[in-house]
Amino acid sequence: MADKLRDEITGNKKHATGDKPSFCVIGAGNGGLAMAGYLALHDFSVNIWTRDKDKMEALAAARGIEVEGKLKGFGELNKIDVDFKKSIENVDIIMVAIPANGHKEIGQKLVKYVKPGQTIVLNPGRTGGALELYNIFRKEGKIREDIIFAEAQTFLFVARKLGVHKVKIFDIKRSVPVSAVRSYKNPELINKLRIAFQQFTPASDVLHTSLGNIAVMFHPCVMLLNTGWVESDHGNFEYYLEGISPGVAKVLEYIDMERIKIAEAVGIRVPSLKDWLYFSYGSTGSDLYEAVQTTSAYKGIMAPSTTHHRYILEDVPMSLVPMSSLGHKFGIDTKYIDSIINIACCQQERNFWSEGRTVEDMGIKNFDLKLIRRLVAGEIV
Amino acid sequence: MADKLRDEITGNKKHATGDKPSFCVIGAGNGGLAMAGYLALHDFSVNIWTRDKDKMEALAAARGIEVEGKLKGFGELNKIDVDFKKSIENVDIIMVAIPANGHKEIGQKLVKYVKPGQTIVLNPGRTGGALELYNIFRKEGKIREDIIFAEAQTFLFVARKLGVHKVKIFDIKRSVPVSAVRSYKNPELINKLRIAFQQFTPASDVLHTSLGNIAVMFHPCVMLLNTGWVESDHGNFEYYLEGISPGVAKVLEYIDMERIKIAEAVGIRVPSLKDWLYFSYGSTGSDLYEAVQTTSAYKGIMAPSTTHHRYILEDVPMSLVPMSSLGHKFGIDTKYIDSIINIACCQQERNFWSEGRTVEDMGIKNFDLKLIRRLVAGEIV
Repeated sequence: MADKLRDEITGNKKHATGDKPSFCVIGAGNGGLAMAGYLALHDFSVNIWTRDKDKMEALAAARGIEVEGKLKGFGELNKIDVDFKKSIENVDIIMVAIPANGHKEIGQKLVKYVKPGQTIVLNPGRTGGALELYNIFRKEGKIREDIIFAEAQTFLFVARKLGVHKVKIFDIKRSVPVSAVRSYKNPELINKLRIAFQQFTPASDVLHTSLGNIAVMFHPCVMLLNTGWVESDHGNFEYYLEGISPGVAKVLEYIDMERIKIAEAVGIRVPSLKDWLYFSYGSTGSDLYEAVQTTSAYKGIMAPSTTHHRYILEDVPMSLVPMSSLGHKFGIDTKYIDSIINIACCQQERNFWSEGRTVEDMGIKNFDLKLIRRLVAGEIV
Repeated sequence: MADKLRDEITGNKKHATGDKPSFCVIGAGNGGLAMAGYLALHDFSVNIWTRDKDKMEALAAARGIEVEGKLKGFGELNKIDVDFKKSIENVDIIMVAIPANGHKEIGQKLVKYVKPGQTIVLNPGRTGGALELYNIFRKEGKIREDIIFAEAQTFLFVARKLGVHKVKIFDIKRSVPVSAVRSYKNPELINKLRIAFQQFTPASDVLHTSLGNIAVMFHPCVMLLNTGWVESDHGNFEYYLEGISPGVAKVLEYIDMERIKIAEAVGIRVPSLKDWLYFSYGSTGSDLYEAVQTTSAYKGIMAPSTTHHRYILEDVPMSLVPMSSLGHKFGIDTKYIDSIINIACCQQERNFWSEGRTVEDMGIKNFDLKLIRRLVAGEIV
């Protein structure tokens, strides 16, 4: 009843048949297959594109995606073409579902081929993804009133790829915040997305989606402080319940405090990890360790079997580095975040500082706070 | 035969009966009991002192130390007095065998009561211990030509306390470098120590003992990068062979590189961890990970059962902080060492930066390299 009433008030209907937007999903990993499969099963027109030509050929041969889990069935795809331009032409919404390390490369393709009226959503943006995309367009003079640049705060699906055209959807989150760079576009964005996904809710702006990035708090730090365990025992332990031991939880609290301070420096409030556990799972406890331990949703979730994993390879450069960069810009001491980045650099023997996303990539290096707030509100280009 | 010849040449005899120095051992933990027990079993006059009065009473009641393991027997102690002054009066050599966190406090007692002709040896000094002790005396104007201030690079014994007056000596190292702050004193120091301990060999100076501190490389970093494992599984894994997984070994290589650079900045060369494993155990490998894995001496050594352990609580403030402080003074980038210190601060919720030993404590904050080299050579006070 409440749902029906809300739909009447908002004018939304689940999977409305009229004015169905068409989609192109970029990416054919866990995320891309789940999203494309979900859309196809709900009778939306979906193209899919990935830079891997072999995958494209296999998908073309299969002509669609087999979905298991929460949803079941074969979702027929509309167009499977190795040509990027053809894949996105004439679609209403481009859902980018790739690791954030690939955003820049995709952004450089998008700036060439995106047409007026199209909407681009990064699923998710990690930290600063939509701003980086916006900046790529800005540098080419391609910003237009009728192109929407948006990012989700986290990924909508919990899914695992079972084959080139097979995916299992374990869960679909009930609510995922999303925002356009120019936040006055959010009602329009939500209206478009809601026809396919009731789960998207508007965030205030991309500062909220980018700094409300909770997952990253649980990723690189927990992996690093369990390096020996992951590598020697192939992740044969419960990632949250055992990996976040009291000492690990303490480090997380300090890292998280820096994220909150960075958010405060740009004038916004984001929930702490502990608050988020309470909002999301009703977990309580006197400290983060206790709150994690009382989160039954974490029971049975095992650790990755290797440290060569997106929890480090994606989250360090695309979440921690941009947070540090933002913090540095606003004079916030991010020594604990920086320490985690440094140790990750040694562990992986890579320079995540230079690989990672910075305020320069986001196009706000020389912006003061007022300009940044005007940018995310949409007042200026 | 070779030993006999060497003894004739050097004039040393194992446990010579003439001119036997008398000792006071400060500390009654694993180290203090092993050292006092060893000396007493070799018929040296030994006092023992610890600030814990209950322990002193129990030791007084027992009148000596029961030793097991490599040595066996009951070593009778000479004097067991809660009074610090009485404990050290008239002894030739004061062996300090306490965690380095206690060096400052003991230094402040020593400066009041040490008499001309006495020799003080920190077992070990960790990084900068002897310099800090020397500086305490210097500030009080108590430096004298005939007082020796020295530090060992590592602890001579591998021992575990079994009770207030019971200790098991598992092993005695074959060779331990030792140096006086004024290195021209080293021949005199070695001559004195060798009557009781053939194992002490002269290091060039205290920069070598302090920066050749190999143990610290294996301690805080390995503990931190195994935090979840230690705390969730109570250290039920092989500390070296499992705890130093490939990713942990990579981080160790970077930390170790910084230590070597700091040593180079003060003009000395110290062996890398990998070289040290080869010298000490004949371990070979293409990288540190492989070298550790081929070290059979590490087989079966389990991890500590808690992160509230001297591997962090002592080694972070008394080895890593002074290394960072020295590095900073000489313009060496110690970002990886600093990152480990920062993460340790969060994990333990303590400020090791302010607790730790710095170039100021060592009395060399305003010294340039030439002055430091003159200091450790003994040219100046």
